[in-house]
Amino acid sequence: MSVDVTTRPRILESYAGGAWIKGSGKGQTLLNAATGEPVAHIDSTGVDFAGALDYGRDVVGPKLRKLTFHDRALMLKALGQKLMELKDEFYAESFATGATRTDSWIDIEGGAGTLLSYASKARRELPNTRVLTDGDVERLSRDNSFSAQHILMPLQGVAIHINAFNFPVWGMLEKVAPTFIAGLPSIVKPASQTAYLTELVVRRIVESGILPEGSIQLISGSTGDLLNHVDGQDVVTFTGSAWTGRKLRTTPAIVENSVRFTMEADSLNASILGPDAGPGTPEFDLFVKEVAREMTVKAGQKCTAIRRVIAPRAHTEALIAALGDRLGKTVLGDPANEATRMGALASLDQRQEVRDRIRELQAEAEIVAGNPDEVTVASGDAEKGAFLNPVVLFADNPLGKNAIHDVEAFGPVSTVMPYDDIDEAIALAKRGKGSLVASVFTDDKKVAEEVVLGIAPLHGRVLIGNRQSAKTSTGHGSPLPVLVHGGPGRAGGGEEMGGIRGVKHYMQRTAVQGAPRLLSAVTGRWIEGADAQTDGTHPFRKSLAELRIGDQLVTATREVTLADIEHFAEFTGDTFYAHMDEEAAKANPFFDGRVAHGYLIVSFAAGLFVDPAPGPVLANYGVDNLRFLTPVYPGDVLGVRLTCKEINPRASAEHGEVRWDCQVTKADGALVAQYDVLTMVAKTWPPAA
Amino acid sequence: MSVDVTTRPRILESYAGGAWIKGSGKGQTLLNAATGEPVAHIDSTGVDFAGALDYGRDVVGPKLRKLTFHDRALMLKALGQKLMELKDEFYAESFATGATRTDSWIDIEGGAGTLLSYASKARRELPNTRVLTDGDVERLSRDNSFSAQHILMPLQGVAIHINAFNFPVWGMLEKVAPTFIAGLPSIVKPASQTAYLTELVVRRIVESGILPEGSIQLISGSTGDLLNHVDGQDVVTFTGSAWTGRKLRTTPAIVENSVRFTMEADSLNASILGPDAGPGTPEFDLFVKEVAREMTVKAGQKCTAIRRVIAPRAHTEALIAALGDRLGKTVLGDPANEATRMGALASLDQRQEVRDRIRELQAEAEIVAGNPDEVTVASGDAEKGAFLNPVVLFADNPLGKNAIHDVEAFGPVSTVMPYDDIDEAIALAKRGKGSLVASVFTDDKKVAEEVVLGIAPLHGRVLIGNRQSAKTSTGHGSPLPVLVHGGPGRAGGGEEMGGIRGVKHYMQRTAVQGAPRLLSAVTGRWIEGADAQTDGTHPFRKSLAELRIGDQLVTATREVTLADIEHFAEFTGDTFYAHMDEEAAKANPFFDGRVAHGYLIVSFAAGLFVDPAPGPVLANYGVDNLRFLTPVYPGDVLGVRLTCKEINPRASAEHGEVRWDCQVTKADGALVAQYDVLTMVAKTWPPAA
Repeated sequence: MSVDVTTRPRILESYAGGAWIKGSGKGQTLLNAATGEPVAHIDSTGVDFAGALDYGRDVVGPKLRKLTFHDRALMLKALGQKLMELKDEFYAESFATGATRTDSWIDIEGGAGTLLSYASKARRELPNTRVLTDGDVERLSRDNSFSAQHILMPLQGVAIHINAFNFPVWGMLEKVAPTFIAGLPSIVKPASQTAYLTELVVRRIVESGILPEGSIQLISGSTGDLLNHVDGQDVVTFTGSAWTGRKLRTTPAIVENSVRFTMEADSLNASILGPDAGPGTPEFDLFVKEVAREMTVKAGQKCTAIRRVIAPRAHTEALIAALGDRLGKTVLGDPANEATRMGALASLDQRQEVRDRIRELQAEAEIVAGNPDEVTVASGDAEKGAFLNPVVLFADNPLGKNAIHDVEAFGPVSTVMPYDDIDEAIALAKRGKGSLVASVFTDDKKVAEEVVLGIAPLHGRVLIGNRQSAKTSTGHGSPLPVLVHGGPGRAGGGEEMGGIRGVKHYMQRTAVQGAPRLLSAVTGRWIEGADAQTDGTHPFRKSLAELRIGDQLVTATREVTLADIEHFAEFTGDTFYAHMDEEAAKANPFFDGRVAHGYLIVSFAAGLFVDPAPGPVLANYGVDNLRFLTPVYPGDVLGVRLTCKEINPRASAEHGEVRWDCQVTKADGALVAQYDVLTMVAKTWPPAA
Repeated sequence: MSVDVTTRPRILESYAGGAWIKGSGKGQTLLNAATGEPVAHIDSTGVDFAGALDYGRDVVGPKLRKLTFHDRALMLKALGQKLMELKDEFYAESFATGATRTDSWIDIEGGAGTLLSYASKARRELPNTRVLTDGDVERLSRDNSFSAQHILMPLQGVAIHINAFNFPVWGMLEKVAPTFIAGLPSIVKPASQTAYLTELVVRRIVESGILPEGSIQLISGSTGDLLNHVDGQDVVTFTGSAWTGRKLRTTPAIVENSVRFTMEADSLNASILGPDAGPGTPEFDLFVKEVAREMTVKAGQKCTAIRRVIAPRAHTEALIAALGDRLGKTVLGDPANEATRMGALASLDQRQEVRDRIRELQAEAEIVAGNPDEVTVASGDAEKGAFLNPVVLFADNPLGKNAIHDVEAFGPVSTVMPYDDIDEAIALAKRGKGSLVASVFTDDKKVAEEVVLGIAPLHGRVLIGNRQSAKTSTGHGSPLPVLVHGGPGRAGGGEEMGGIRGVKHYMQRTAVQGAPRLLSAVTGRWIEGADAQTDGTHPFRKSLAELRIGDQLVTATREVTLADIEHFAEFTGDTFYAHMDEEAAKANPFFDGRVAHGYLIVSFAAGLFVDPAPGPVLANYGVDNLRFLTPVYPGDVLGVRLTCKEINPRASAEHGEVRWDCQVTKADGALVAQYDVLTMVAKTWPPAA
């Protein structure tokens, strides 16, 4: 049943419309980056691209949209665990890309980890529903007869993910995860160069049967006429060169249909050594280590790698020495060899490309460590493998130069640039014209504040390195699933991941306006003015199976006496003058005399609405958005209106969360306090055995 | 000093780099839509467009970014009030556009109202700072040595707003408002046709001196080479025809620099009559009224107008009759005449354009009311004015047709389409391929739910009309400052307004990572793990002038006894079994025995942290995000740690909000409860006289 994936060169297939498809054309042979031997053959000729889109839109999308956010999150969790189990097979395949096992850890385990992170975040931060509400209800009429609520729903198209060669696994999964949580099918198009690893992973995903059939389709080879068929409900993402990105962005169908297009492209990321972080400080050592690491991990083939090393003029000499020393010890060679610290570039062409870029940089900077033309390897074949030792350049007067801020040598190459004061360091970082990430190494609060706020508008992510976070920092070059990845300007203007923000890229935000009773029917949440029902049963006596949105309790009332206030003060120790001293309370701008404690009000409210006997309501686990709106004076009579607002059953427990709208009012109707009471409620009562 | 704006034709000037500039070229003469007389002459030849951008970036932007969100909001409020005072001058100028006073109410007072709405929303929903935090702190290490926080900062460029002819005032202000709140200068380019009104308003804005010099620059005429100079920190918005929008979107500098480009273009908005809403129901009458209004307000020249009228087959005949009847009574004529209900189209060219589009629609639909070729006016000149009476078409078998879903006749023209069931109604609405808005008229919850969720992913806004909201509904065609305006696909993919969402379009989101003490220095908010200080003074004894982020109180401790729990139950009436019955409490999945009330815990906590004597802390006005994390059993000893987290001085009061991080823990360190305590604190203490 399973296709043989060990014969070399392996014939890569596309997966579209529910079937694996061999290309019918000539295609292209892909070579092992470290040995030059043929690894695979890739070709997508004959794939029905328009058909794949239609299949996603008409067959897969409707299936995915029937699931809730938690359903999809649980599938993603199972898939992440499955891929983790299979990781050794992926590591073995990955050596051909030139990557060491450490390099591929980011790609393979980082990719699976991204699925797990999204699975967990979606279950924690999203309700177990099919439609999301976004922001607060906007009240558009005084009498609550007309209100609005923004909602988010999955787009009804397909997400096309066009990825770069350097992260064949993570590059796919970091986009598939939020897409799938949102409820959209993906069509993945990996860069051909390393597509054999992507194809293997997709094969295992399909075999696992964990995701609904068609959730991921794969194009091994060219995208053919795929992009001519996209429409306004589709999304296209692109990671790769700016040149290709611009071409794709102006595809007629993308422009005409206003297709959401996000892009991660060239980025000349900077790292700044703080003026306080001279030789001898922990930050100096951390900086050297980080720059060297960013230059050598994946042989510098990371869109987040440090290309520009911005350091105080007084420390550049020491920095170059330390950097040269550290890089000189980097063991280059066969990526499969355990002693190797840096593997090969993705191909010989890629190496030539990097060497050409170094030449361009040399017009403005001098090489101060490494030699791009001589390769020293400890293992592997220096002739056939795409090896290149790290190269450090130095550019004086960097503000007056251009190429060092513009030319991306996509390999183990960085340029050191001196600065005289912090403003100059900021100006230099900004010369990148928008980057994915920048970092600053400092232990000084002022420096951190000034640099970060100075450069943030040009960056998608900024990392501060210091002694305190030395052990726990995830590092300059690591995008995280919970943080935005992308950057403005030259970096492409994209925004990926960022936790649930990433999910929303694949959803349509719609403002819905209407009478609350109809609006509530649309959103599935109770809002002020919507229908509420009282059927004689206390709503706390209803299990999730019985409870309905809008179930309401209007309690008896209770007077708050001066004795109550004094007693509460005495009992709790909260003898704040506004409760205890009439004269002082009157002098307060908000009160006309002694007032009841806010905590007394909510305590009495609970006394009014709680049903004491054991029942389906298991616990009050919290309160949200509590506001005290009108002071309560001795003699005021309070009542409570409690309304079931949101019901959120957990997929993997015998209970779920219920959110209650709680209003405490005086006899004259004045609103005293408003808040959400959060309870855990059993799915059935008495509980199933 | 003030330029004479009464001579006709008036010479329109551009405002750039702090000066009014007369065009040096031939330019164009603009005609009164209702009379055909020359109104103004427009020409931007000679304007230094690149210089205007640089002026915005280098001179204006830095000034605006020094202000806080509240500073800018207060300026916007003052400006809104000023424009409201001057409205009569604007109404007088507006008649030349063909608009009646009612038409211009949306434009002029709606525009000023949008400024006021943004001013109010910004002060309510944004802190009084220069940097926004976005979302929660992401804890990236177990030991709190490495965390992250997304921040939002104003882009450091200029927003270029290219607007349509139909809303010369609102069209400018709905974009300028969020731009200015964000901290960016605007360059406004109105459509030439009605630019005289925009120019007059900008003149009054500049004269008022309310906004910092250069906050708005104006181009009266062509944008010349302006768009060739944009970079990644600039934003371009466009409202107008899809054809022009596509051209602008593919401008090389926009594509190469990934400039944020948003667009509102053609939109064939649908309105659906629910199957329940037959003749005789209030919804039927509301529907007829709404369709007729949307066809005639601004003579149908609204991007949100109803172009497609989707009705149950059984009711189409009655609908057409009612619609024809109502429209037949619409008094067409001189917009300045008070009896006029519908004015002229913007120009004779525009009328010809609409007539041409009606011809195209006639290939698939028949005219059932109105005659595009014969004009009947009650006042004004039917020859020289661009008048057109309303036209209703009917298209049977609408799912099988194309032009009726594709051709936008930008005037008083709509097509009625019958449907047989709700799925068909939804399918018809979706044939618009993405619209700004749709509406459904129904009093049935199921219909509302099904239709809204069915069409929402293709729409930026959906309005539900029914009897309950008849008086308060703002209507199908009215974008509101608090709601998203824009739509996917054919509508251009833009998203404007939506309250604070709109402000964020002009800001860069950046993930900042680092040790909490440095991260806190960047965001100006205390976060877990950041520095905290205790100087012997209770932090509640510090005014805003004295209080510092991180000021911390660690309280004495207090035991919670069984007697306390029983007493609290007795006193408040909250005798929930988990507090009162050991056996029943043990049976609860969350508890090992009787537990203290959550409200008892927070009440005791207040008793521990409150400082009783009069002082700068004036009131506790609320609590946010209260979570009970570990049950408290009799005998547990509680302590509180209270830390100053956010300080938010009000611009226009003698106090401000202070948010305190509050942690209640047991003696063994277990976290019992976590929440934010919200207080009002005086700016100085004792208060200034």
